[in-house]
Amino acid sequence: MLNDFEFEQNSLTLNWHDGRVTRLDVLWLQDHDPAGRHANGQRLISVLDLDWQATIQSVERQDDELVIRLSNDRRLHYSLARLHQDGLVSQQDDRGWSGKTLWRGEDFQVPTVDWQAYQSQDDARRRALAAVADSGLVLLRGVPCEPGQVLKVIETFGFVRETNYGRLFDVQTVVSPSNLAFSNLGLGPHTDNPYRDPVPGIQLLHCLANEVDGGENLLVDGFQAAAMLRQEYPEAFELLTQVRLPYRFSDGQADLRSRVPFIETDQAGNVLKVRYNNRSIAPFMLPFDEQRAFYQAYRLWAEVLSDPELALTFRLEPGDCLVFDNTRVMHARTAFTDGGRRHLQGAYSDLDGLYSSLYQSGAQSC
Amino acid sequence: MLNDFEFEQNSLTLNWHDGRVTRLDVLWLQDHDPAGRHANGQRLISVLDLDWQATIQSVERQDDELVIRLSNDRRLHYSLARLHQDGLVSQQDDRGWSGKTLWRGEDFQVPTVDWQAYQSQDDARRRALAAVADSGLVLLRGVPCEPGQVLKVIETFGFVRETNYGRLFDVQTVVSPSNLAFSNLGLGPHTDNPYRDPVPGIQLLHCLANEVDGGENLLVDGFQAAAMLRQEYPEAFELLTQVRLPYRFSDGQADLRSRVPFIETDQAGNVLKVRYNNRSIAPFMLPFDEQRAFYQAYRLWAEVLSDPELALTFRLEPGDCLVFDNTRVMHARTAFTDGGRRHLQGAYSDLDGLYSSLYQSGAQSC
Repeated sequence: MLNDFEFEQNSLTLNWHDGRVTRLDVLWLQDHDPAGRHANGQRLISVLDLDWQATIQSVERQDDELVIRLSNDRRLHYSLARLHQDGLVSQQDDRGWSGKTLWRGEDFQVPTVDWQAYQSQDDARRRALAAVADSGLVLLRGVPCEPGQVLKVIETFGFVRETNYGRLFDVQTVVSPSNLAFSNLGLGPHTDNPYRDPVPGIQLLHCLANEVDGGENLLVDGFQAAAMLRQEYPEAFELLTQVRLPYRFSDGQADLRSRVPFIETDQAGNVLKVRYNNRSIAPFMLPFDEQRAFYQAYRLWAEVLSDPELALTFRLEPGDCLVFDNTRVMHARTAFTDGGRRHLQGAYSDLDGLYSSLYQSGAQSC
Repeated sequence: MLNDFEFEQNSLTLNWHDGRVTRLDVLWLQDHDPAGRHANGQRLISVLDLDWQATIQSVERQDDELVIRLSNDRRLHYSLARLHQDGLVSQQDDRGWSGKTLWRGEDFQVPTVDWQAYQSQDDARRRALAAVADSGLVLLRGVPCEPGQVLKVIETFGFVRETNYGRLFDVQTVVSPSNLAFSNLGLGPHTDNPYRDPVPGIQLLHCLANEVDGGENLLVDGFQAAAMLRQEYPEAFELLTQVRLPYRFSDGQADLRSRVPFIETDQAGNVLKVRYNNRSIAPFMLPFDEQRAFYQAYRLWAEVLSDPELALTFRLEPGDCLVFDNTRVMHARTAFTDGGRRHLQGAYSDLDGLYSSLYQSGAQSC
C-alpha cells in the first residue's frame, strides 16, 4: 500500500498507492509510538515524555513495517497498516452532520424496524442504530403496549438518563401540568431539555394509547434546517452559533439552568448539535445594539424550522416507539381533544451508548 | 428604584437609581412580555409571534409598573421589579470560571463537610454544594464504610449517571485491568471519561479502605491552570480552545468516542470546561504545518497541570467521599504497593442536578 517515503530531520512523508500523502512531525511519531500504549490501547506516555530535541536519523522499511531511528537512539516501530489507518483518521466528528443523510419530511420515509426482529437479528438491530446515527431517528414497531417497555428498549443500546422527571415519564394530560408537554396543547418544533447540562442526546417516545382527535407528530431534521439557514442567511447562521442563550426550567422540585447556542459548530463550521425550544428560554440580555440582529437571526431560524417542506408528519400508534437524536431532530405535536386516551411514555439516554452499540455491532464510523 | 426612562420608536431606555442603564429593543419587550408566559414560567409565544412593524407609541409609569403601548394597540405590562431583575440577568454562565475561587494547592484547604451534618442541617448541605460550585470540590467526612454509599450521596443532590462501568465502580487492583485506573500504577492529573458524550460533570470517590503505601491523591484546579496558561502563553491557550481532539475507550464491551478541545470557552473567552487525559487520546491527525504548534501548546498545558504549586496533595481515608466537578478539577494518584487493601468506590452524576439542588437550597447564582 506504500509507494515510497522520504524524511527530513523533523518529518516523515508517506506516499500511498492510492495517491494519498501523509506527512508526520517527529513529535507525532513519538507521541503515537505503538510501544507507548498498554495492551488495552490506553496511551502510557504523556506529551511531557516526548524528546523535543530528537530528530529522525533513518527510516527503514522492513516487510510490513517502518523502523524509524531517532537521534537519541530510540527506535519506533510502525506497521504500515497502522500508519495507513492512523492517516485515515479524519477530523470528522461522528456526532456532527458530515456524511449523514439530511432529509426533508416531504420526501423522507421514517426508517422503521420491527421490534421482534431488532431483538433477535443482529442485522435488524444494526440497521436501527445506524438509522439514528445517519438520519437521526428510527421507529420501532410492535413494542408491547405495557408500561416500562421504553426502558427495555434503552437497555439494548445504552443506559437510562434519570432526571427530575424520573427514569421514564408519562406524557398524558394532567390538570395544572408543571410542564406544557403534559397538557393537550400543541407544541411547536423543539428539542427537549435545553436547560439540562448536559442535554440528553437520545429521546424515546413509546405510544401506549392514542384515541384522541389530533395529537399528530411532526419531526424536523435540524441538520437540514441548519444547512438551509447557512445557505440562505450565512450571517444569521454565524450569529446563532455565537450567542449562548440561557435556558431554565423551574417547578419547585428542580431549578435547571444551562446556556447554549441554537447551533453548535466545530472550528471548520460543521454543525454538531442544534437546539430550539421557545418555551424554556430564560429572560436574557444582550447589548442593545446586538438585540435586533439577534432577533432577526432567531426569527429566520424559527421560520426555517416551521417550513412545511421540512416537516415529516405521522401519528404514533400503540406499540410504536420512536428513538431519536435530541441534539438534531426537532419534534412537535398538534393539539388534541380531551375526549379519548393518549398515553406516551418517554425516557432519555445518551449518544455515546448508542454509538458504542453501533460500533460494537460491526458498523464503521459513520 | 427607577430614576427615569425615555423611549424612541424601537427602544426603551431605563435609568436606575443605582446608575445602571438598561436599553431594550421593542422586539425584546414583546418577546419578554409577562403575559406571554404560562403560570409555570414557560414561554407561550414564539419569535414568530412578534410584530416586526410595531413601534412604541407611549410608555406610562403606573405605580410599580410600566405600561408600554405599541403602534398595533397592544399593551405590555412590566413590573419595575421584573425589568430590574431581567436587566440584571448577566451573560455569565454559572458553569464557567467567572466569579469563582480559583485555587493553588499550596495555599488551599479542601472544603470539608461532615456527612452527618450534611444530612441533618440545610446549612451544611448548602455549604457542601456551594463548595463544588465555587471551588470545584468538597470532601464529605464520615460517610459509612459500606459498599454503595456513594450512590446514597448522589441521591441527596441529583441522579446517578450509569455507564458501562456500572452505576458505581470499584477502584481496586485487578489482574489485567481493562482500564489502568484499576491497576496500582500512578496516574497523572486527568479528568475522567473525555471519550464519553456527554462527559459526566460530577465524579465521586468514596474510600472504603486504604492500607497501602503510596496511593496519595492529587487534585489540580483546571480553571487556575487555564488562567495561568492564558496569561503566560495566550497563543497556546487559544489553540487549545480550537483543536477538537478525538478520545476513545474500547474494551470489547464498549467502544466510546468523543471529540472535544482541551479548553472550552464561550465567545467572551471565559473558560467553561477543561479536560486532560493523555491515556485515552485516540490517534489523531492534523495538517502537517499545524502539528508542531499543537504539540507545543499541548506540552505547555501539560506542564502547567504538573506544576507542583498547583497540586493539592492529600490521602483519602476510610469514610472520606470526595465530590468534584469533572469538567474542572483534575485528579491524580501516586503509585501504590500491592501489599495492603485499597478500595475506593466511584460513581458519576451531572452538574445540572447539583446546581439545581444548590439553587433549591436558597443559594443565588454563583
